[in-house]
Formats: sequence, C-alpha cells, structure tokens
Amino acid sequence: MAAKKGLKTFTELDAYKQLKILSKNPLDLTKEDVLTPERIQNMSASALNFQLLYGSERVTEEVLEALEALGRETCAVTKMKSCQAGDVINKIEGFESEDRQVLHTAMRDFFDHPQVSKPALEAAKLAKTECDKLDDFLKKLDDNNLFTDLIQVGIGGSDLGPRALYLALQAYKRKDRRVHFISNVDPDDAACVLKDLDLSKTAVVVVSKSGTTLETLTNEALVRSYFVKAGLDPNKHFIAVTGKGSPMDDPSRYLSSFYIWDYIGGRYSVTSMVGGVMLAFGLGFDNYYEILRGAHAMDQNALQTRMRDNLPLLAALLGIWNRNFLGHATLAIIPYSQALVRFTAHLQQCDMESNGKHVDKLGQLVNFETGPIVWGEPGTNGQHSFYQMIHQGTTIVPLEFVGFKESQYGQDLLVQGTTCQQKLLSNLFAQSIALAIGQKSDNPNKQFLGNRPNRILLAEKLTPFTMGQLLSFYENKVAFQGFIWNINSFDQEGVQLGKVLANKILAIFASQNSRASVEAFPAGAALIHALDKLK
Amino acid sequence: MAAKKGLKTFTELDAYKQLKILSKNPLDLTKEDVLTPERIQNMSASALNFQLLYGSERVTEEVLEALEALGRETCAVTKMKSCQAGDVINKIEGFESEDRQVLHTAMRDFFDHPQVSKPALEAAKLAKTECDKLDDFLKKLDDNNLFTDLIQVGIGGSDLGPRALYLALQAYKRKDRRVHFISNVDPDDAACVLKDLDLSKTAVVVVSKSGTTLETLTNEALVRSYFVKAGLDPNKHFIAVTGKGSPMDDPSRYLSSFYIWDYIGGRYSVTSMVGGVMLAFGLGFDNYYEILRGAHAMDQNALQTRMRDNLPLLAALLGIWNRNFLGHATLAIIPYSQALVRFTAHLQQCDMESNGKHVDKLGQLVNFETGPIVWGEPGTNGQHSFYQMIHQGTTIVPLEFVGFKESQYGQDLLVQGTTCQQKLLSNLFAQSIALAIGQKSDNPNKQFLGNRPNRILLAEKLTPFTMGQLLSFYENKVAFQGFIWNINSFDQEGVQLGKVLANKILAIFASQNSRASVEAFPAGAALIHALDKLK
Repeated sequence: MAAKKGLKTFTELDAYKQLKILSKNPLDLTKEDVLTPERIQNMSASALNFQLLYGSERVTEEVLEALEALGRETCAVTKMKSCQAGDVINKIEGFESEDRQVLHTAMRDFFDHPQVSKPALEAAKLAKTECDKLDDFLKKLDDNNLFTDLIQVGIGGSDLGPRALYLALQAYKRKDRRVHFISNVDPDDAACVLKDLDLSKTAVVVVSKSGTTLETLTNEALVRSYFVKAGLDPNKHFIAVTGKGSPMDDPSRYLSSFYIWDYIGGRYSVTSMVGGVMLAFGLGFDNYYEILRGAHAMDQNALQTRMRDNLPLLAALLGIWNRNFLGHATLAIIPYSQALVRFTAHLQQCDMESNGKHVDKLGQLVNFETGPIVWGEPGTNGQHSFYQMIHQGTTIVPLEFVGFKESQYGQDLLVQGTTCQQKLLSNLFAQSIALAIGQKSDNPNKQFLGNRPNRILLAEKLTPFTMGQLLSFYENKVAFQGFIWNINSFDQEGVQLGKVLANKILAIFASQNSRASVEAFPAGAALIHALDKLK
Repeated sequence: MAAKKGLKTFTELDAYKQLKILSKNPLDLTKEDVLTPERIQNMSASALNFQLLYGSERVTEEVLEALEALGRETCAVTKMKSCQAGDVINKIEGFESEDRQVLHTAMRDFFDHPQVSKPALEAAKLAKTECDKLDDFLKKLDDNNLFTDLIQVGIGGSDLGPRALYLALQAYKRKDRRVHFISNVDPDDAACVLKDLDLSKTAVVVVSKSGTTLETLTNEALVRSYFVKAGLDPNKHFIAVTGKGSPMDDPSRYLSSFYIWDYIGGRYSVTSMVGGVMLAFGLGFDNYYEILRGAHAMDQNALQTRMRDNLPLLAALLGIWNRNFLGHATLAIIPYSQALVRFTAHLQQCDMESNGKHVDKLGQLVNFETGPIVWGEPGTNGQHSFYQMIHQGTTIVPLEFVGFKESQYGQDLLVQGTTCQQKLLSNLFAQSIALAIGQKSDNPNKQFLGNRPNRILLAEKLTPFTMGQLLSFYENKVAFQGFIWNINSFDQEGVQLGKVLANKILAIFASQNSRASVEAFPAGAALIHALDKLK
C-alpha cells in the first residue's frame, strides 16, 4: 500500500488537495477572541520534558487534522521506522545515487531496548565499540595529564554541529580543558587559533569521513607544520576521525583513530565520533553520554504514531503548512538562550543541505517548494536587530522559538522584581503573541499587520540530556519533511559542481595562468584577472 | 523638482515600468557564450581600492541603463547629499515620527575636506571632540597600565557592529588587551564572560543611547554586582557611552562618559563612540582612526553621480533588480574571510531594521517589496552547509560575495601548489560561476538549473582602513535602497509592540500571577502557565 501511495507525487495527495483548499482562508490570528488562553492551552503538545506551543500558528483543528492525514498518507512514521531500522533509503530510484542506509540514530541506540532490526543492531554495536574505545583513550589522557587543549579541524558537518553543542554546554565543561575549532580554509582562521596555544599540551582531532576534504586536509597540513616548527612530533598529537579505509585511515600518523561509516551523513554526525571525541574531551565523557541518551529518547519519540505525541512530526507538518500552503520561503529559528548561539547555524546546514532539493526520490523535478531558507540569531539579541523587518516588513517570516524555564548557571539577579531568565521568557512570549495578533493604529507607521506564524518549543533547562533531545528533535523534523515531500534528504549532489570548478581555478593559480589552464576555464581566468586591478 | 517627483510612488516611476517590462525576459546566464571573459571584464566597477564584479547578475546593458535611470528618477544621490548635509530626513510626512537628522557620516567626516553644510560641520566638530577625549583617556590608561580587559555591554547596534569589527581585525589587535561582549539578557551570557576574568584589571563600557535599554541596564546591574562582590568600586571601572541627558548621563557613576546624539541610529553607530571606545581600547587608537578614514572615503564615493562610479549605489540598484523585478525575497551575504565571521550578523541588522518597512515616507502602505531577509555565513564554510539548497533548492537566493586578494596574517602554506588564500579565492570564483551557469546532466539529481544571480566585492586585504570602507559601503547601500523605495530607513517602530507586551508579561512574573496582571494580558499568562507543565 505504502509503495502504491508513494507513486503519487506530493501535489497529487488527497491531503494536499484538502490543505490547498483550507489554505485559501487561513485563520486570522489578529481577530479578537482568536488567540485566547484556551487556544494556547489546547494547541500545545507535550513529550519527554518538552512542550511545543503552536497556538500562534495559522492553523485550525481542521487544518491540524488534514496535516495529520498528510503524515498518514505519506507514511511518514513508517518511513522513520524504516530509516531507523537501516533500510537503504538514501537513493534516487532509477538513477545513480548513494544507495546507502541512514543510521545516525544507531550512534546512540544502546540504552533501553534491543534494536529490532539486524542492520541497526550491528551499527549500534560498532558505535558502542568506538564509544568504549573513546572512554578508554580519554582515561589514559587523564591518567597522564597529557593535554589541556584540543583543536577540532573539520568543516561543515564536522564543525557546525559539534561546535554548536560544545558552545551550548559551556556551563558543563571541564574547567581544566579548552577546545578550539579550525574549519575555514582561510589561513587567518588557523593563525588566529594557534597564536595563543601551548602546542606541547595540545591535541588535534582531524575529522573527515572521506579523508579527502580539501579544507580539512589543508588545515591539517598547516597545523602539522606549526607542530614541526615547535619541535614537536605531530603524530603524537593528532587524532583521526574518518571512515575505515579512507586516505586518512593510517594509524601510524595518529595518536589514535576513531571510525565512522558511510551511513552517517556529515550533517547528522554530531553524536558519532565526529562530535564525540571533542565533546567527551571538553565536557567529560559522562556529559557526552548524556547527550547520546537524550538524542535516543527523542528518536524514540519520533516513532510515535499520533501527530500530537510525536513532536518532530508535528513541527515538520506545521512547517509544511507554512511552506507549501501559506507560501513562506524562510524559517527563522530563534533560541532565547545565548548558549545556543551557534545552534541555528547547525540547523541551517541540517535543514537546507537535507531538503534543499529539486528532484523527488523518483528523479522527477518537483512542482512544489521544498526546504526553506533557515536562519536566525538568539533572542533577545535578534529583537534589537532584524525583528523590525519580521514585524513590519513586506515578506512574512515564520518563526520557531526555543526557550528554557531555568538558566544554566543559575546565577541570576532580581532587577525591578524579576530575574534575567524571567525577562528572557517575557520577551519570548511577548514576541510570539505580538507577531500573531499585531496592532491597529491611526499612525500607519505604528501599525502591525500581525498573522506572522510562529511556535515555541519549551524545556526546563539546557542540560547535556536536553541538548541531545533538541538535536534529535531537529534531525527528525527535517527527515520527516523529506519523507513527506518524498525527496532524498540524505545526499548532497548540489555541492559537487562548485568543487569541480574550484579545481579548474586552482589549476590556473598553480600553473600561473598557463595557457592550457586558462583555456580550460576562461571565465575563471577572467575573475582571477580582476585581482590584478586591486591596489 | 525632486519634491514633485517624490509624489510618484515607486511603482509609478517611469524607470519602474521599464524595468518591469525588461524583467519578463531576464538574461539567461546558462546559455553558452553569455558569461564570457569579456562580460566579466565589462561588468565590473572600480572605486577606491574595491572592485565590484557583477557579470553573474541577470542584467544586460539595457537593464543597467534602466537601473541607472531609476536612481536618477528617485534622486538617489541628491538624497544622499541631503542626508550627509544633515537635513531632517528621518520622518514620515503628516504623522508623528522621529523627525531627526541622520548624521552617522559626520562621525568620520574630519579628514580631507571642509563640510559644506553647517549642521554636518557642527556634528563633525562634536564627534571630533569625543574622539580627542577618547584619545586622551586611553593615553591615561596606558600611562597607568590600568586595564588589560574590557567588557562591552550593549545590544543590537551597540553590540553587533562593534563586535563584528573587533573580530574582523584580530590581526591588528593590541596583544596586551582583550575585549569581551555581553549583550543578551540571558544571565548565562554574562556568567560565561565573567567567570574567567580578573575584575581588578577589567573595565566595562556600557552602551545605550537612550540610557533605558532593558537588557543593557539589567546586564550593567548584574556586572556591577560582580564587582561589588569582588570588593571593587564599579564606578572606577565603568565607562558610559550614552546620549547627553539620558538617565545614564551621570558622570559620578562612571570613570568616564562619552556621548552620542539622537542623529546616530543604533545600527549606524559603529564609527561613533558606540564602537569607538572598545575598538580604540582593543585595537589601538590609530587603528580605530584608520577605520574612520576608510568609512569616510567610502562616504565620499557614495556621492558620485554616475552609477558605475558609485559602488554603494550600483550594489543597491542590483539588489533592487533582484528584489522587486526578479522577485527574490532574501539576500545571502557571504564573505570568503573568516575574520568577517560576524559581519553578516551586523549587516542583517543594518539592512533589515532599516528597510524592513511597510509604509513609505508619506505614510502610505507600500504595494511593492521592501528590504529582503539578509543572512549568511563565511565561505568556504557555507559551501559545506547550506550551498546544497542554493544550488539545487526550489527558492532562488541571490548572493553577494566579499573576498580579498591577500590574507591578514600572511601566514600561508603551499599545499599542492597553491596557497590557502588561493584556495579560498578559487572557491569563491567557482561558486559565483557555478551558480550562474549551472550544469546539464542526464541524471536529474546532478543537474544544476543555474541563473542564481550573484556579485563579488573584492579588495586587496582586510585592514582597518578597508574595514571602514566595507562598513560604509553597506551603510550607504542600505540607505540608497531606502531612498529609491522612498521609505524611512532610519526609524524602527516595528520593535515597539514587543516591548510593550513584554512589560505586561514581566508584570505577571513580578506579581506572581496577580489577578490584575493576568487579566491585563490573559494570553501572556497562558504562556507562563505552560512553564508549569515542564518537568
């Protein structure tokens, strides 16, 4: 049945047609008696220790039912089960494609239940082995007090997610250790990090699944040269995280090597050794393990059948309502938490690289919008920046807020009768309502049109466990949207063309404008030529 | 004449109509022999030490002529002159509005020519006085070796721009000094900064033009409490940057006070004392002065009449082509420079808060799109993140790239025959071309539709002087777009409603759900109530 239904494209689905009709008259949140306390209470979903409040979305019960039907008609939860079970879902039917399993969930699937499928079980076993190896390795570092600092060298998925989590959990970090990051091929990035470090006490973890990432290998070479200059043997400081058999899988060059597998996409690799080595070094192994426990708990939630019990599915469907039916091209993700300062950058990759696609899983050009542009900065900072445009601009921006009841450090101060954390939450709540209801005014410049859809994800406190849940919430939300659109969220063919052309331009630089290299790419040579005009 | 023409709205302009016709058949960059070396060379503009390359935009000579005509018809350069001369341009005709001058350009207008207008001359004199005061103050700090660290407490314009520039110029910083930032009302933000500092050697600069910014005053109180706890007198460590006569204008509470004026908008305040105190402390006064020199040079360029001599105007018009005629809702600004890691966040504020408006200067609701959603991350990092969506997503994202011929530190390494900086530039150039020309393929998943418009801004090296120019380039670009749309780019009424509602929610928190406070805002109380359900 699922297969037959799969033959229908997104816009041919019954639920799509129903939603299309409903979208002609979306709920008007600016009307009096719409955004009532009752609505706020009813339009909320609880799971684990999270609350998802969506009363400020332009949805009625009828829309919610049609969204749930869309989830059913596209077999979204069945596809999630199939993904977690290790079926080969990273593929495009009838065309050359990656043809891989998608098993990042297995990286944390060793807590409270036996995996039902053999592939998932095997993947989880392999993951647990690496985890135990890491635990042993770190104990040895501790015993010998070898390193105070660690540099993570990686880019994209080997940088954004791990870095976001490390920054998010500074309140839990080991006081005796510091972590640094080098990602960009910009030589200033490395120079800036290295200038203040005692390299004799510094380890470097180089992360590249393929072992061929240009930026990462270049930075590895650059950083190794600093160690050599300092009279140190880099092989005693460098750690590898890579795929088995990759060009980087050469234990003689590394103090230790940890492995990942082709079923772990870069943007889904935070909980694997890609994030693991650094997070366990910087936060302590137990905190890393808590992250895994949290992520696993939310993976389990993503298997719930009912939409309102399944937070990632609910958020995915609300996003599809805004994207495909109300026609909004972007999504701002705004955590009211400074700790999550780089989390949106990670989600930007996770979402846009997964769902920024123009063909479906049958290789057909889609005739509907896929993944939105995801962007954002923490609140309240954003309020003093781009919120003007969100309230009064001509393009409507849906928002997803994230907030916490308690602060991490617990160091707070009563000013004018409220704590900082209460001020933070007051702003979050006020924005959610203001964006929805707007405000009339005789002065057109003080008028707010409202009907800016938004939702709030709330948790008690940003702990390692909560962080793991939050990470998995978004990974699963993105996967659900891909399942519903029937696109492949797990490849990234769109990054290839730029790489090919970059190599042609590099050839021009390397050959100092040899005739052959210029003729192979005249437009590239013309851009290089523009550099000559700079004073 | 200008006034009469001003009566026409944007969509009634002759040039608008002409551009609307031309936009029906925009240039197809994917056709062979379109993006030729000749086109790349011809579609480039030079000014100061910058090159703006726009061959990858979907423009023909005819479109460029019509864009230039649009600039003329809207008297864009005349309005810029009027702005820099200190006319009262921050207003909405016929309605209560700020009714102020806009004179951030005067903050750096004391270099190479006598100001022609009296108001600008006076503003520049006042600015120079503060500048000299700062120079003296810093010399005294130096003589007495008082502080090694400085914390900038501010939010929005008092944080994003100053922070972006400080981070951009780390290669030029004083090695004996460090600067830190606290902006968010999130108490974890302050706790995280303060936990490692020796407060006896730390100065704090508190920045708020109004002297009433909730977040900033809260953070000031919080940070002062840390000083008191450490047995230190905060009045001997705290510096104020505020408007004359504001509640913060109380020299007895500060080691020193520096002033700004109501004609300096927060998002345009980087070169005033808002950024000045911190930048001059952290980078040295001379480097701060270089930033001012650079910004002033670009302000002068913005007065050029011909579009192709006036880089900010040219970029503004290309942006309007993409926004109003090709219908693109967002703009990604991608510096291929890790140093500019936070510059896009500043530009996000500068652009979206200025031009995210729905009424024109006559108070009429606009019937066209105004400021886009501005977002981005440095390249090459973005390539490994959201570029998938930019190349193959269903929503087209115009891009503005920024690149430099040389790196800042000059510490580079030949790997496989090219330097890191050359690799960075190769990627930048390759992306620009790939996005424009696309690629055909029998495998639909490996197909690139191309026609993603983009432009490249190039300079030789990111120095303090170049940074000042770059800052001014964007300030003036944004102002030009506002002039052309005839909206007021200098107020921010859209941030008011959220503040009002936040205070109502704070009252509920402060009174612990008093009946009166709940009844005054039941929806707010309902959101607070949701916190109780969190475990």
